[in-house]
Amino acid sequence: MSILVVGTIAFDHVKTPFAERTNLLAGAATYFSIAASFFTKVSVVGIVGEDFTDEHERIFDARGIDLSGVERRKDGKSFRWTGEYGYDFNTRTTLDTQLNVFADFQPRISPAHQEIPYLFLGNAHPVLQRDVWQQSRARLTAMDTMDFWIRGTPNELRETLQCVDLLIINDEEARQLARDPNVIRAAKAIMALGPKRLIIKRGEYGATLFGENSFFAIPGFPQENVVDPTGAGDTFAGGVMGYLAATGSWLDEGALRKAMIYGSVMASFTIEAFGVERLLALTREEINERYRQFRTITYFDGVEHSF
Amino acid sequence: MSILVVGTIAFDHVKTPFAERTNLLAGAATYFSIAASFFTKVSVVGIVGEDFTDEHERIFDARGIDLSGVERRKDGKSFRWTGEYGYDFNTRTTLDTQLNVFADFQPRISPAHQEIPYLFLGNAHPVLQRDVWQQSRARLTAMDTMDFWIRGTPNELRETLQCVDLLIINDEEARQLARDPNVIRAAKAIMALGPKRLIIKRGEYGATLFGENSFFAIPGFPQENVVDPTGAGDTFAGGVMGYLAATGSWLDEGALRKAMIYGSVMASFTIEAFGVERLLALTREEINERYRQFRTITYFDGVEHSF
Repeated sequence: MSILVVGTIAFDHVKTPFAERTNLLAGAATYFSIAASFFTKVSVVGIVGEDFTDEHERIFDARGIDLSGVERRKDGKSFRWTGEYGYDFNTRTTLDTQLNVFADFQPRISPAHQEIPYLFLGNAHPVLQRDVWQQSRARLTAMDTMDFWIRGTPNELRETLQCVDLLIINDEEARQLARDPNVIRAAKAIMALGPKRLIIKRGEYGATLFGENSFFAIPGFPQENVVDPTGAGDTFAGGVMGYLAATGSWLDEGALRKAMIYGSVMASFTIEAFGVERLLALTREEINERYRQFRTITYFDGVEHSF
Repeated sequence: MSILVVGTIAFDHVKTPFAERTNLLAGAATYFSIAASFFTKVSVVGIVGEDFTDEHERIFDARGIDLSGVERRKDGKSFRWTGEYGYDFNTRTTLDTQLNVFADFQPRISPAHQEIPYLFLGNAHPVLQRDVWQQSRARLTAMDTMDFWIRGTPNELRETLQCVDLLIINDEEARQLARDPNVIRAAKAIMALGPKRLIIKRGEYGATLFGENSFFAIPGFPQENVVDPTGAGDTFAGGVMGYLAATGSWLDEGALRKAMIYGSVMASFTIEAFGVERLLALTREEINERYRQFRTITYFDGVEHSF
């Protein structure tokens, strides 16, 4: 089955301790859709400015991604973000955010797109996210959010959380949202707000999945070659949703666990290069090989020893 | 087989955001030996002052722990540590350290203790650790260290690292020791200094095991009831070494992986109460139950999907 993603197509300017790159094709919908395109058909709803060229469009076309829901504006630039990473890549500072044409983005979902069964709401104003959800007839809705909305629009965010099946956020966001420093307690509090499942991303430490009575955790893929962590979270979400949609799975625990491994695999590739460079060079066999490696690095004999 | 542990028997004063407790029986050798005593026979080499009473001795006796190698001094107090935890338990500040009788501790290992095949060198001056290793005829030696020695006595630490089979440290220490913010690269650099295996403890994020060509990672046990994290690392080491010694395993990858689960299980109990309170109330069935839970929370189907 196919996926609809609503979110930013952006251009990033990224500074790392070792290099700096500008005008990188980026944004949540870009990372998400390219990652998910390895698993199934993806349609994007978004908005771009005059800086989005035919060359950029060809990148999506080559991955079979449907951009018919992307509004093209000639009177402004696309969303632009500038950020800098600290020495160990675990701290990120936003130096500049320009909403540009995204500032007055009012997504209208076409009748055909309304029927797409899997919906991912990229990080955006929770009212915008809820509006998209109301237009859609998706059977499974997942979403992301960030500290800006958690602090700035808490009531609107709570309303939106009531609509979604799966929330995918990082652990700082989870602690903030629940106002509890203990992630396990925070997860329970967040699920009480609406989401049936919660995935907490923990960067190099992996990710955890919370269900009503279940818990699952995976480590980060051991990655010594980190070039640019930007987009890892959206890539992860693309892998998760891509796997679920490709297999026609909903909130099945076994499928969600495998989906998280695929999400982590995809993210582990994204960070090996700037922007979507590594994803665009990726093969299906590389994805499968890294999936199998996850099994190797997490396997232990689960039968306790008698001593 | 049995284990010899060399380290502090101490009294802690611990402040958490929710409570404060003083005169807690603590120290690396205490946590380690009590944890390991659930698996095998443990002997302790250490030093205590006049504040170590018969009541404290009975706690070790009840666990079958041999204290014949512990020097009793009547002219001073035991090692004392005061520390405070931040809001989320992930930051710890040392408010006071009194070495007391530990200041001129010069361990002499008895002939019987020299023959014990498993040796754990608790955090101490690397020259002291090396001196104990030279006296011992252990077949497997593991050790801990801390930022104080990494910064203060780097050359002595490097000499000691050449002697040990297994180093067990936390991730900040690993980054410091290797002077590399990437933990995977840091691990390789550390193993080049001598240790054949390296376990990196990551608190609530779990732990990772590095071999020459192997990598294994486990999540932290989901714990919403954190009362006092003190001693979690030494408890973890006690569980790891306890399992290896009980099963007569050396650096076998499968045994090390199971040992890490047992280490994590033991540590997950320690943090549920102040000091060694929870460990002393622990049953074998509780340990096995949590071991099985680790399997449940990490299991996924390792066969990749065809889509």
